[in-house]
Amino acid sequence: MPLVVVGSVALDSIETPTSKRENVLGGSAVYFSYAASYFTPVRLVGAVGEDWPAEYTRLFQQRGIDTQGLQIIPGGKTFRWRGRYLADMNKRETVEVHLNVFEQFDPVLPDDCRRAKFLFLANGPVTMQLKAMEQCTGAELIVADTMDLWINTQRKELENLLARIDGLVMNDSEARLLTGDENLVRAGHKIRDMGPRFVVIKKGEHGAMFFSKHETYVLPAYPTPDVVDPTGAGDSFAGGMMGYLAMRGAFDPKTLKEAMAYGILVASFTVEDFSLDRLLKIRREDLEQRMDEYKRMLSF
Amino acid sequence: MPLVVVGSVALDSIETPTSKRENVLGGSAVYFSYAASYFTPVRLVGAVGEDWPAEYTRLFQQRGIDTQGLQIIPGGKTFRWRGRYLADMNKRETVEVHLNVFEQFDPVLPDDCRRAKFLFLANGPVTMQLKAMEQCTGAELIVADTMDLWINTQRKELENLLARIDGLVMNDSEARLLTGDENLVRAGHKIRDMGPRFVVIKKGEHGAMFFSKHETYVLPAYPTPDVVDPTGAGDSFAGGMMGYLAMRGAFDPKTLKEAMAYGILVASFTVEDFSLDRLLKIRREDLEQRMDEYKRMLSF
Repeated sequence: MPLVVVGSVALDSIETPTSKRENVLGGSAVYFSYAASYFTPVRLVGAVGEDWPAEYTRLFQQRGIDTQGLQIIPGGKTFRWRGRYLADMNKRETVEVHLNVFEQFDPVLPDDCRRAKFLFLANGPVTMQLKAMEQCTGAELIVADTMDLWINTQRKELENLLARIDGLVMNDSEARLLTGDENLVRAGHKIRDMGPRFVVIKKGEHGAMFFSKHETYVLPAYPTPDVVDPTGAGDSFAGGMMGYLAMRGAFDPKTLKEAMAYGILVASFTVEDFSLDRLLKIRREDLEQRMDEYKRMLSF
Repeated sequence: MPLVVVGSVALDSIETPTSKRENVLGGSAVYFSYAASYFTPVRLVGAVGEDWPAEYTRLFQQRGIDTQGLQIIPGGKTFRWRGRYLADMNKRETVEVHLNVFEQFDPVLPDDCRRAKFLFLANGPVTMQLKAMEQCTGAELIVADTMDLWINTQRKELENLLARIDGLVMNDSEARLLTGDENLVRAGHKIRDMGPRFVVIKKGEHGAMFFSKHETYVLPAYPTPDVVDPTGAGDSFAGGMMGYLAMRGAFDPKTLKEAMAYGILVASFTVEDFSLDRLLKIRREDLEQRMDEYKRMLSF
């Protein structure tokens, strides 16, 4: 089943302790779309400026990612982010951020998108997420991501959103910020009490936790020795997870757990190179092979 | 099969964000012994001072922990540690530490201990660990723990130890310190290259990683909402792991993975109260019940 994602499309400049890249393809909706495209057709809704390289749009299209919802804003510039990873790669600093066209982004969903049954509201202003959600009246599963900025500046809108979505995906530090609880198990359930039927807390190199009324579980990350650039890992996780759910056309507990595992594995490939470089080289079979290893790892 | 542990026996004073305790039973060999005692007879080798409450020795004995190797040093004082946990409970500060009798501790293994096939060298000076190891000539499986202090001050002795033991168990931050590698997967294998056939990296609330020549895996921690005091979690993990191996009398890959899981589960109980308070209330059946939940959590 088609899956719609609304979020940022960006050009990232990234420095790690050993390497760097300038103006590479990035943004929450980009990583999400590519990760989901291993499983299901994806429709990308976002905005870029006139500086947007047309080759990137072709890259999406070759992958079966529908770009009808990707607005090119006349006279605008694409969202740019410059970041630096510290020695332990779990910590990063934002060196520069220019929201550009993303600042005023007013999502307009093409008709196909409005009829989608699976919707993901990637990281962005909550006001924008609400606008997108309101256009997608037939959605059966709506999942959102958020971050510290919106927790701090759009708390009221976020509470409104939480009461209306099915699932929330967020980082561990953000779950702590949102709830004021340092214990992630308690934090997960507190967020669930705010509305969503399920909550996923992403823990970076430590995997992800799942919370629903009747379930609490943790799945570890796949232990890769080749962490080159962690950017986009969380969005890839969400893309793998939602892509799998949309492919299955289901979101029962069993399917959700499988989806969590696929999300973890797509993310484990994303971090093995900059931007989409590693994902561009793998196929669904590579994911399945890693899934076999992952299942072996967790069985005893 | 009997299991010998050599390490610290202490009186701890602990402050958490919500509570505190003075002079409670602690120390690496104490948590280890109690955790292992769910699975196998344990022989504890350590030293205490004249201030040592005899009721604690009785507590060990009631549990089937042999205390022949617990020296009471005339005129000496028991090792005391005072620590404080910060809001997120993963970070702690040592407020005071008095090694007392542990500083000059010269382990003398009773005959029964010398013949043991399973030996654990709990956290302590490497010179002490080496002395203990040399007395245990028939050991088939020798596993050690270590910490930043000894990595920094007894590096040469530690390299000597690593070349002679079968397994090493240590924290993530210590694995990074020892290897200078921030990536734990690479760090684990680098430590293995220093000698031990297997390496276990403990990640606190994020579980534990295992490294051998042919295997690399991660098992997550059991997600408990009731973290009261994390002290002793790592030693309880090691005790559960080694206790299970000694009970089985084996350390093949399959048994090692089961042992890792038992270690994780004993530790998940330890953190639910101060000192040994939670462990005093559970039985082997409680561990088995949590194991069933843990296995369900990891299967999909």
